[in-house]
Amino acid sequence: MSGLDPDNWDALRQLGHRMLDDMIDRLSHLREQPVWQPMPNGLRQELRTGLPAGPSAPEDLYARFQQLVVPYATGNVHPGFMGWVHGGGTAIGMLSELLAGGLNANCGGRDHAPIEVEREVIRWAAQICGFPTDCSGLLVTGSSMANMIAVITASRAVPDGLAMRRAGVGTRRLTGYAAASAHGCISRAFDLTGLGSDALRIIPVDRNNRMILPELEKAIARDRAAGYEPFMIVGTAGTVDTGSIDDLDQLANIAAREKLWFHVDGAFGALAALSPDLRPMLKGMERADSIAFDFHKWAQVQYDAGCILVRDPTLQAAAFAQSRSYLAREDRGLATNGPWFCDLGPDLSRGFRALKVWMTLGTYGAERMGEMVAGCCAIARHLARRVEENPRTELLAPVTLNIVCFRVLAPVDDLDHFNGEIVKDLHESGVAAPSTTVIGGRKAVRAAIVNHRTVEADVDRMLEKLLELADARLAREKQG
Amino acid sequence: MSGLDPDNWDALRQLGHRMLDDMIDRLSHLREQPVWQPMPNGLRQELRTGLPAGPSAPEDLYARFQQLVVPYATGNVHPGFMGWVHGGGTAIGMLSELLAGGLNANCGGRDHAPIEVEREVIRWAAQICGFPTDCSGLLVTGSSMANMIAVITASRAVPDGLAMRRAGVGTRRLTGYAAASAHGCISRAFDLTGLGSDALRIIPVDRNNRMILPELEKAIARDRAAGYEPFMIVGTAGTVDTGSIDDLDQLANIAAREKLWFHVDGAFGALAALSPDLRPMLKGMERADSIAFDFHKWAQVQYDAGCILVRDPTLQAAAFAQSRSYLAREDRGLATNGPWFCDLGPDLSRGFRALKVWMTLGTYGAERMGEMVAGCCAIARHLARRVEENPRTELLAPVTLNIVCFRVLAPVDDLDHFNGEIVKDLHESGVAAPSTTVIGGRKAVRAAIVNHRTVEADVDRMLEKLLELADARLAREKQG
Ligand SMILES: Cc1ncc(COP(=O)(O)O)c(C=O)c1O
Ligand SMILES: Cc1ncc(COP(=O)(O)O)c(C=O)c1O
Repeated sequence: MSGLDPDNWDALRQLGHRMLDDMIDRLSHLREQPVWQPMPNGLRQELRTGLPAGPSAPEDLYARFQQLVVPYATGNVHPGFMGWVHGGGTAIGMLSELLAGGLNANCGGRDHAPIEVEREVIRWAAQICGFPTDCSGLLVTGSSMANMIAVITASRAVPDGLAMRRAGVGTRRLTGYAAASAHGCISRAFDLTGLGSDALRIIPVDRNNRMILPELEKAIARDRAAGYEPFMIVGTAGTVDTGSIDDLDQLANIAAREKLWFHVDGAFGALAALSPDLRPMLKGMERADSIAFDFHKWAQVQYDAGCILVRDPTLQAAAFAQSRSYLAREDRGLATNGPWFCDLGPDLSRGFRALKVWMTLGTYGAERMGEMVAGCCAIARHLARRVEENPRTELLAPVTLNIVCFRVLAPVDDLDHFNGEIVKDLHESGVAAPSTTVIGGRKAVRAAIVNHRTVEADVDRMLEKLLELADARLAREKQG
Repeated sequence: MSGLDPDNWDALRQLGHRMLDDMIDRLSHLREQPVWQPMPNGLRQELRTGLPAGPSAPEDLYARFQQLVVPYATGNVHPGFMGWVHGGGTAIGMLSELLAGGLNANCGGRDHAPIEVEREVIRWAAQICGFPTDCSGLLVTGSSMANMIAVITASRAVPDGLAMRRAGVGTRRLTGYAAASAHGCISRAFDLTGLGSDALRIIPVDRNNRMILPELEKAIARDRAAGYEPFMIVGTAGTVDTGSIDDLDQLANIAAREKLWFHVDGAFGALAALSPDLRPMLKGMERADSIAFDFHKWAQVQYDAGCILVRDPTLQAAAFAQSRSYLAREDRGLATNGPWFCDLGPDLSRGFRALKVWMTLGTYGAERMGEMVAGCCAIARHLARRVEENPRTELLAPVTLNIVCFRVLAPVDDLDHFNGEIVKDLHESGVAAPSTTVIGGRKAVRAAIVNHRTVEADVDRMLEKLLELADARLAREKQG
C-alpha cells in the first residue's frame, strides 16, 4: 500500500470533528486564557524528536499538538495582544483554511475556479483602494513580498527597463525614495532585488513622522544632477512605528511631475479606506501606480495573506512573465485561462489564499469591516487620552490611526531600560502584549490596536497592569 | 459592536462540522468524480459580484463555494491528475490547516511554539537531505522562492559579498551555472535579484538531460578569463521535464575545486532521498551548500510549502537579517528566541506552514513516505513499459524517477499539434490530466506521477483513453 489515504475514514472524521470543537471552544473563550506564556524548556525539548521513521496515530499527534503547541501560541488571537501589527483572525477564516486544505488547489495558474476566486478578490482589493478593477494584482505572503514585487515592477517599467531582466540592474543607476518612517522591508526590497539599499534614498520626516516633501524634491534633483536615474517614490499609508500617513496626494503630484512610479505601502493603513470617516486621510492613494497591503493585518484574515495591486496590468506581467514549454498555454483543457498568477510574481506553485479573503470579506461585508477598522482607531484614541491624562505616562507620538506610542515615567536613571523591562513583565503577566519601538531616541511602549476583539476595557487593563508592574519594579529596586 | 466573532457560535460550529463532513466525503470518493471539468462561463460570471457592502450568512457563502468552486477545482487531489508536478494533499494535512487557521500564528519571529515546530521541521528536512541538523532553513511558498533565497544567500557569500546588500549587485560581475534542463525559476531568480538572467550561464545537457560537466568547466574558465566572478553552480535533482538528475557528486567536486557555492534544486526529486532504493541516485546532494525542495509536491503536504536549507547557518542570516527598532530582540517576554525566521528570508509576517508538514510526516513517518515515493517511480516505470511495448506510442526520454514523456504516433502531418490536441481532449474527458512539454523539439505528453493516490490502473486508463481519443480524432479528421 503506497497511498496515504486513511484505512479508516471514520476515525479521521471523528478526530477532525474533535479538532473543530476544540478550536471553536478556544476561540469562544479567549479571555479566560493568558495572552501569552513562555514555553517551558522541557516542552521545547519534547518537540525535538528527530524525523520519525515509523507512523504515529493522528490522535497522538493531536494530543502532542494540544499539549506542546496550543498553550504557547503567539497570542495574537487574544484581545489583549497589541504588539507589532498582528491581525486576530476569525472563525470563518479558520474554516476557510479547512476548505482550502481540502481542495488543495495550486493557484499558480491553469483553468479552475480557485483562480477565479483570486481574481475576484483582487477586484475587491482594487475597489477598496480606489483602483480600477481591471488592474493587475496577486495575493502573496505579506506586504514585504508585495512591496518587493512593486519595486521589481517599477524598476522594469522605466524606459528600456525590461532589458534589465536579462542584463541585470547594474546596467542602470536607479534610485528610489522613501521616508525615514518607511518600513524596513522597503529597504530590504532594494537590497534583495540587487539595486542595493543605498539606492533607496531615505527622506527625513517632520514631527508627525511624515515625509518632508521639499527634501524629497531636493533629493531627486540631486540624484538627477549626479547622473542617477530616479524611478520610484514610496509613500506609506500607516507607518509601522506610529501609524502616520505620508501626504499621498502631494506625493502623487510630485511623482507625476517627475515621471516616477508612485507606490504606496499600505500594509495595514490602506484598509482604513474601508471606513468612510478615515478614507479622506488616504487621499492620493487611489492615484498610485501600485499598492501593497495585507489582509492578514487589519482585515483579520488568517496568516499569511498580503496583496499587491498594479494599476497598469501590462507592466506587472512584463516584469515577471516567463515562457517555458512545460508551462505552455493552450486554447482549451486545463492549460488555459491566462494570464496565470505565476506570470505576476516570483511564485510558481501558490496556495489558495484567496478563499479565506473571499469568505471573510464576504461574511462581514465592507461596511462592517470599515466599522471594525474605525473601532480600532477609536480605541487607540481612547488609550492616547488615558495616557495624556495620566501624569505617570507620556504620549510619544501623535495618534493618526490605531497605534499609540507612549512611555511610563518613573524616577529611574534609565527610562528606556525601565520601559523595556516593564513591557517584558507585562508579557509575562499574560494580561496584555504591546511591543516596543524607539521614537525620537526614546524607548516607547507601542500598542497597535489591530485585533477586532480588542475593546476599550482591554487597553485600560493593559495600562493599569503596566503601571502596577512599574510600581512593583520600583519597589523591588528600592529594596534591592 | 465592532468585533467579528459570531453572535451565535453554535451555528458556526455546525456549519464547520458540515464543511468537514463534506470535505471528508469528497476526499473519500474522489474516483467517482472527473479529474477536472471546465468551469462554465455563466458560473464564472456569478463569482463577479463586486465587493459586498453588507454581510452574508456564512451558510450562503458556503453554498456558493459548493456550487461555484468545488466542482471546478484544479483536480490535483484526484488519482488521475498527472500534470505538471502537483502533490495530492492528504486529509491530515487538511485538518492541520484547520488547526493552523485556529491558532493564526505569525511565524515571522517571537517566542512561541509554532516557531519551535518550524525549527523541528527544518531539522527533519535536513535529516532527509543528509544535511547537518544545525543548518539553517525556512519554509517558504515553494521552490521558486527557495531557489531565489539560495541565489541571494550564495551571491552575498562571496568575499566582501555583504557589501552588495547596500551597494547593489552591479558592483560585481557575478555569474552562475545551471543546465539547460534546470527549471525556469532559476533563471527567474537571477532576473529578480538583479543579477540578470544572462548571468546564469546555461550549460548544455547530454541525451539523458544531465548537465555536461566538461562544458560547465569550460564555461567557468571562460568567464574567469573574461573577468567575471563565478559564484554558484546549480544542480538539479529531478528536472521538471524528464526527472533527470545531474551528477551531483561530480558537481560538488567541481564546486569545491572552483570554490563556488553548490546549490541543489530538488523541488520534487530531493524527496527521493526518503527511499533507500532511490537515495543513491542523489549522491552528492548532501554535500551541497544549499538545497531547495517542496513539501507540497512529493511529500503530499497541502499547498503551499517549500523549503530552503543552507548548510552554514551564519550565511543565510548574513544575507537577510536586518535590524529595526520595532523588531528589537529582548532577553525575555515575547520578543526573544532569535534568530527569527524573518532574518532568513524576504518575508516578515509568515503563516504557520510548519504544522501541516509536522502532522503529515508525523502521521506517516519517513519509511512509509519513502515507499510512497518509490511507488510513484514504479508506476512511472510501468507506464514507460506500456509506452514502449505499444507500437502506437513512443517514449521520448529515459525515465529516472516519476516522469514519463511520450507521444502518440499517428498518420498525421503535424504530430506535435496532434498530441497537443489529444491531451486537451483527455482533460475534457475528465479521465486523466497529464500535461505537455517539448523534448528534443517534439511535443510530448508528460505524465508526472506525484500523487500518492495514483495506482497502475490509473496510468493504464490514461493511456487507453488517450489512444481512444486519438482514434476518435483521426476518424473525425478522415470524415471532415
Ligand atoms: C508599514 C508596513 N509595511 C510593511 C510591513 C511588512 O508587512 P508583512 O509583515 O506582511 O510582510 C509592515 C508590517 O508590520 C508594516 O507595518
Ligand atoms: C525542478 C523544479 N524546480 C523548481 C520548481 C518550482 O517549484 P514551485 O512550483 O514550488 O515554485 C519546480 C516546479 O515544478 C520544479 O519541477
